[in-house]
Amino acid sequence: MATKRYLFTPGPTPVPPEVLAAVGAPVVHHRAPEFLPVYERVLDRLREVCRTESDVLLFGASGTGAFESAVANLVSPGERHLVVSAGSFGDRWVAMTTAFGADVDVLRYAWGETPDPDDLRARLGEREAKAVWFVQSETSTGVVSNVPALAAAAKESGALVVVDAVSSLGAVPCETDAWGLDVVVSGSQKALMSPPGLGLVAVSETALSATGSSPRFYFDWERTRKAQQTLDAPVTLPVSLVSGLDVALDLLLEEGLEAAFDRHTRLGRAARAGVKALGLELFSPDEDRSAVVTAVRAPAGVDSGDVIRGVRDRFGITIANGQGELKGKIFRLGHIGWFDVFDITTQIGAVELVLADLGADVERGVAVTAALEGFSAEPSRT
Amino acid sequence: MATKRYLFTPGPTPVPPEVLAAVGAPVVHHRAPEFLPVYERVLDRLREVCRTESDVLLFGASGTGAFESAVANLVSPGERHLVVSAGSFGDRWVAMTTAFGADVDVLRYAWGETPDPDDLRARLGEREAKAVWFVQSETSTGVVSNVPALAAAAKESGALVVVDAVSSLGAVPCETDAWGLDVVVSGSQKALMSPPGLGLVAVSETALSATGSSPRFYFDWERTRKAQQTLDAPVTLPVSLVSGLDVALDLLLEEGLEAAFDRHTRLGRAARAGVKALGLELFSPDEDRSAVVTAVRAPAGVDSGDVIRGVRDRFGITIANGQGELKGKIFRLGHIGWFDVFDITTQIGAVELVLADLGADVERGVAVTAALEGFSAEPSRT
Repeated sequence: MATKRYLFTPGPTPVPPEVLAAVGAPVVHHRAPEFLPVYERVLDRLREVCRTESDVLLFGASGTGAFESAVANLVSPGERHLVVSAGSFGDRWVAMTTAFGADVDVLRYAWGETPDPDDLRARLGEREAKAVWFVQSETSTGVVSNVPALAAAAKESGALVVVDAVSSLGAVPCETDAWGLDVVVSGSQKALMSPPGLGLVAVSETALSATGSSPRFYFDWERTRKAQQTLDAPVTLPVSLVSGLDVALDLLLEEGLEAAFDRHTRLGRAARAGVKALGLELFSPDEDRSAVVTAVRAPAGVDSGDVIRGVRDRFGITIANGQGELKGKIFRLGHIGWFDVFDITTQIGAVELVLADLGADVERGVAVTAALEGFSAEPSRT
Repeated sequence: MATKRYLFTPGPTPVPPEVLAAVGAPVVHHRAPEFLPVYERVLDRLREVCRTESDVLLFGASGTGAFESAVANLVSPGERHLVVSAGSFGDRWVAMTTAFGADVDVLRYAWGETPDPDDLRARLGEREAKAVWFVQSETSTGVVSNVPALAAAAKESGALVVVDAVSSLGAVPCETDAWGLDVVVSGSQKALMSPPGLGLVAVSETALSATGSSPRFYFDWERTRKAQQTLDAPVTLPVSLVSGLDVALDLLLEEGLEAAFDRHTRLGRAARAGVKALGLELFSPDEDRSAVVTAVRAPAGVDSGDVIRGVRDRFGITIANGQGELKGKIFRLGHIGWFDVFDITTQIGAVELVLADLGADVERGVAVTAALEGFSAEPSRT
């Protein structure tokens, strides 16, 4: 029998078969009458998922492309901006805002630390910024930041708030309007349970009226917004991916956002319970907010790459290594999107077997049960 | 029975079922061992299709996005550039180069005219340009320009040559290296027989060494090239679309590029023969180079929108209206990519019936046979 394959990376994530069926359906024209209701529904549902009354703009691009739309529209050369970075994606946004000529102040943390709203408040007191850019779920470390607190600190100074919610939207709460987020960026390939290739940006009226002078066309907000208002796509859309996203958003909203958030909280608890029962050390924080990806330190003397190759070669399982300086030191168990508890027990069970084979000192025979129990306890949402 | 549906627009184009199956297959990680051979094969095959030894860079974006990569990498504010425009896409490239701050000289033709290399030579004699930007197949009018002659005229002045081959690559010859084209831009959703969502750009060493100061990150050539050289995708790739493109490129190269060019030449002949047998007037030139889309004037007193609605409502067929000022005046029969002669006879037959219903004075009962005969004659390639 061919090996069953399991995609457990924190993006791309597993895609439900009914979504794949829509993605693989015959192609329709992006301005044909049969596509327009799909387009309209996706734009409406994205507003619902982002919890905003503002427009959500859809681009044929990765999450990085959607983020670039924020940079290209909001940054003018020489302007002061503040980027909070505590991992790989924070660093990417530093590089991107710098590439667009911003005078970038970086509130930098060691990878794995959780940004502190008081630090942000203090830094903005020293130097104002047109916008504050930060990451909700730093996929490279598993840290989910306290978005409402960071947003409040930023808004006290009058800054615009731009949030990278690529790996978090649909997995943990993101209250765009209630928290006063001006820009929320996400992508199709995480908790939205679709293949990669679509980026999205929720943009407030305040942000739309604060656009700057950087050159742009493909990622231009105003052009895209005007086109979307009449469902007259500004360029040829990736219709296959939009049709898939339509089905995926239906599944997500059918479950209900709150239920999805609870499920992700429990998935995170299950993963952490399993990891701890193995006797391993968590890299991501041991708290309910760590509901997106669980980062784990490889045991002493073990290269995390060997864990990853082991679960791949023995079981057809794809999990993620650390990025940058964490490569070889941590491995990351994803639980974003179309996951249930058995996707956690599969990961935990496979890691246990591979680590034992590698000669690591792990507790045997208890971790899968601990994961199941961790999932079953009622979440006490904070 | 549900209506059969036919996608006959000049992009998106029909996608073969084996390509759809690959697009709808379970998602794999873009850096997983099972995806890397797919990525490598696609990059190699794109070089083969572009007939170049240079790198072909792949972006998750529409053709417009891939074109923007050329603008963002080559245009610095205030630089002189020359854009040839004879239709909707030429106009788009004027708007885009202008948005990036170029001092743009436009060699403008009425929509439907064919750019003349001598005009280009004369214009470049009056004012030099860093790059000359032109369209191989102006999808809005059906005109396929004489690329080698235009490129030769541009190169005499020392300008870089940038070609929009979005709707032409794989349908008509595009000899990137032999014709000295510095940049060739295309997309997945035309003759490459895949869904929309992937843009590509072949970039010569000369072009790579002539990059400018416009800000860019997602569309940056150097960053993308370096990443591709180790198959370490610079951002999350639309893996589903890349896997589909892999299958589609295999189909195209299995047929052979020369055979595909001949087939498109014959498809164009068939469409024109059918249109003329109906007694209608061609809008696109009546010549073998018009192998991509056949634009047809609506008969006196008929709005082309009624033809389009008629074939849609009666037969489930999607063909394209004119764009801009040509809306209502022409309709466009696509024959790009996965087309055979019966896709032409279907279009011709449907148009005949609908025009007759609309009371137009069309010749009845001869056009389908004329189209079949037009296809059968041996092409005398020019």
